Amino acid sequence: MNASTQPVVTAHRPEFASWLGNTNEITRTFLAAGSIPDLINLAGGLPAPELLPTDQLASIVEEVIRQHPAETLGYGPIEGLNDLRLTLAERFSTASLRLKKENILVTTSGMQALDLLGKVLLNEGDPIACQFPTYLGALDAWRPRQPRIRNVAFDSADFDAVAALKGVKFAYSVPNFSNPTGKQVTEPVRHALVDAALASGTWLIEDDPYGTLNFDGQNPPRLINLASNNNAAEQYNGPIVYLGTVSKQIAPGLRIGWVIASTEMIEALTLAKQGSDMCTSGLTQRVALHALRNGLIESIQSRAVDLYRERRDVMCKALSTHLSEWYEWDVPIGGMFVWAHARNPQLNTNELLKHAMQNAVCVSPSSVFDATGTHQQALRLNFTLNPPEKIIEGVKRLASATRQLMESN
Amino acid sequence: MNASTQPVVTAHRPEFASWLGNTNEITRTFLAAGSIPDLINLAGGLPAPELLPTDQLASIVEEVIRQHPAETLGYGPIEGLNDLRLTLAERFSTASLRLKKENILVTTSGMQALDLLGKVLLNEGDPIACQFPTYLGALDAWRPRQPRIRNVAFDSADFDAVAALKGVKFAYSVPNFSNPTGKQVTEPVRHALVDAALASGTWLIEDDPYGTLNFDGQNPPRLINLASNNNAAEQYNGPIVYLGTVSKQIAPGLRIGWVIASTEMIEALTLAKQGSDMCTSGLTQRVALHALRNGLIESIQSRAVDLYRERRDVMCKALSTHLSEWYEWDVPIGGMFVWAHARNPQLNTNELLKHAMQNAVCVSPSSVFDATGTHQQALRLNFTLNPPEKIIEGVKRLASATRQLMESN
Repeated sequence: MNASTQPVVTAHRPEFASWLGNTNEITRTFLAAGSIPDLINLAGGLPAPELLPTDQLASIVEEVIRQHPAETLGYGPIEGLNDLRLTLAERFSTASLRLKKENILVTTSGMQALDLLGKVLLNEGDPIACQFPTYLGALDAWRPRQPRIRNVAFDSADFDAVAALKGVKFAYSVPNFSNPTGKQVTEPVRHALVDAALASGTWLIEDDPYGTLNFDGQNPPRLINLASNNNAAEQYNGPIVYLGTVSKQIAPGLRIGWVIASTEMIEALTLAKQGSDMCTSGLTQRVALHALRNGLIESIQSRAVDLYRERRDVMCKALSTHLSEWYEWDVPIGGMFVWAHARNPQLNTNELLKHAMQNAVCVSPSSVFDATGTHQQALRLNFTLNPPEKIIEGVKRLASATRQLMESN
Repeated sequence: MNASTQPVVTAHRPEFASWLGNTNEITRTFLAAGSIPDLINLAGGLPAPELLPTDQLASIVEEVIRQHPAETLGYGPIEGLNDLRLTLAERFSTASLRLKKENILVTTSGMQALDLLGKVLLNEGDPIACQFPTYLGALDAWRPRQPRIRNVAFDSADFDAVAALKGVKFAYSVPNFSNPTGKQVTEPVRHALVDAALASGTWLIEDDPYGTLNFDGQNPPRLINLASNNNAAEQYNGPIVYLGTVSKQIAPGLRIGWVIASTEMIEALTLAKQGSDMCTSGLTQRVALHALRNGLIESIQSRAVDLYRERRDVMCKALSTHLSEWYEWDVPIGGMFVWAHARNPQLNTNELLKHAMQNAVCVSPSSVFDATGTHQQALRLNFTLNPPEKIIEGVKRLASATRQLMESN
C-alpha cells in the first residue's frame, strides 16, 4: 500500500509557533486526574455530578431534534440561533440596560468567548490588565496572541482603576466569586472600574460564570448594568463585555456560553468565530434554550446553592480542624473555591503539589493563576465536586502532604 | 439602577487587532441567505436536509445521555472521548498506517482543526503553501495569524512539489473533490506532495471532508497512507496531518471533526484546544461515536452518493442547456461543487454576484477562494442542497443574471 519510495523522516520539521514554548499543562493534568482511581480532586472547577439533570435533558434533546431537525442538525448562523439570542437579550435586559439580539453572540463554551476576544483585540505584545490572581483559562486563551499582562489586585489598598486601565486594550475581571480566590469585587471597586472604562473607552471584560452561585444574598450590580445607558430608549453600546455560560448552571457538556456587548464588538467577534468553528451546535443551543425558557435552569440553581453552601461549610470546618496551622483563608459567600494562603512564606505550593499527588489529593497551586508563575504561596481548593466525606478526607490528605513538605524543608 | 455618574462614551475605543481590517463577509452572507424567502442558494456547501437522520439521531441522543450521563453532560478530556479516539484510530488504521489513540484529536468541527493548526504553527508573517483556489474557511481560520500565502495550482503543467513546499510552515490541500473546484488531486501529484513533505519535513495538511462522496469509483490513496511507515510495527509519525469531519457524513449540527497526526502534533494541538474551548461536547461526541459504531454513517453515505450523483447530473445538464455560452466546467466525479469558469475574461464574477442576488440566486464568486481576491473569473456552484427543480430554476436565474451583466458591460 505504501507507494512512497522514501523513508519517514522526522528531522528538520518546522518549528511550532513561539507561544507554545510558554504553556502550562496543569489544566490537562487536572482533567486527566479524574481518571486516577482513589485520587480526590480538589483542583478543578467541576460542578457536582448529582446536579446534572440527566432525565430532563435526555427528554429535551430528543424533543428538540424532532421539533427542529434543520436547526439542531444542520449548519446555523455564526452568531447563534435567533431564538436563543432573543431569549438572552430579554433575560439580561433591565429598565436601563436595553439589549437586542444584535448585542448577543452565542459561543461554544465560555472559554471560546475568551479566545475570540483575544483574537479581535490583541496584536502581539499588546498590554492588558488582569484581575490578579487570574483565571487560568483566560491566560491559556490569550497566550497565542502573546499579550503583555499587567497584574492588578482589585482588593489592594492602593488600587487605582484609572491607572490600572491606562493604555491597555482591555481589562479582565471575574467580579463574582473569582476564579481562583472565590472573592467578590466590592461595589466601590466595580464603580471605579466602570467609570474608568467609560472615561477611557477601554474594553472591560466581565466574566461571570459563578454569579448565580451566591449562598447568602444578592450580588452587587453587574459591571454591565453600572455601564448601561441613562437613556432607557437607547440600545446598549458601552465598553463592558459580559460573558455568561450554562456550564455551572445546566451542564458543561453542552459547551454553551454567550457574550453580551456593543454591536460593534459582537460584529468583530462574529468574524473571529466564523474562522474558529463556523457556528455552535444547534442541538446544544436548542437544549440550552429549552432549559432557559422552561425553568430548568432555576430549579438546578436552587439545588446547587443549597448543596454548595453545605459543602463550603464542610470544607471550611475541615480546613479549620486540619490546616489552620499552615494556611489562612476567607470563607467565600458563593462560587466553587476557597483560596488558602500559606502563613509561612517558605511553604511553596508548587512543591506542595508533588506531595499532594503522592497523597492522592490534587489541588491547584497559585502559580498557575499568575502569568509570571511567581505567586507560589496559595492554593485554590474546590468544594463543589465531592461529597462531604471526600472533602474531609481530601483536606486530611492535604494536611499530610503539607506536613511532609514542611518536614522535608 | 444606573449608579454611574458618567455618560456612555464610544469615542476613543482601542483599535481591533490588525487582521480584522482584512476580512470578507461572504460566508456570513451565505449562511444568512438561507433565511431570504425564494432565494435559491447555490453558494454554500450544505448537505441535503432530507439526508439528515432525524429519527435515528433523536433516539441516539436520548440513549447516550441515559447511558453515559457524566461523559455526555460533564467536562471531558481536551483530546476527546477515549472511546471515540480509539474508534477513529481503528477505523483509519491499515496494514502500514498504524494509529493509536494518541494520533487522534477530536475537534469541535473541521473548522476548529484549521484554527488550531494556525495557532500551533504560525507566527505572524510565516509562509504557507495553499492549493489554489483555496477553501474559504481555511483562509478565514488562518487570517488572525497573518500568514504569507503562496498560491499553488496543483494541476498546472509546471507544478513542482519540492518548490511549492520549500521554506513554508505547512502546505494545505483538499485532495478529494476540492472546495471550491470539485476536482481530485491526481495520484502522481499526491506522490509528489508526500515525497516533498517527507524529504523536507514540512507539514502537509490533508483536509478531507468530501472523500466519502465519490459517485463513480474509488479515490486515489490518501496522502497520509502514502506517507505511512514501511515498518508495519511502527506507530504513525509522518508529516501529513489528516482532517476529517462528520458534517458531510452525519450532520453538521454535531460540530464533530478530528485530526490524525503524529503524537508530537496532537500534543501541540491539544495545548491550543485547551485555550480555545477546553473540550468538545461529550454529548455530540457520543452521538458521532454511536453513528460510527452502528453503521448509521455507511447507510447515510450510500444514500448521499446516489442522491448527489443525480443532482450533479441535473445541474450539469442545466448548465449545458442554459449557460454553456458563457462558462466552461468539468463534470465532477464526487463532492458537492461544480466550478464554472467564464469563457470571456470580461465576465467578472464579483460583479455577477450582485445581479445574481437581484435574480434571487446566490453563488460563490472565485475571489473568495483567493487570498489576494484577484481571481474573479469563476463560480463555485453547489448541487447537493436543492432538489432538481430548484437546481434547474437556479441555473436559469444565473443565466438571466449573466445576460444582464454582459449586456450592462
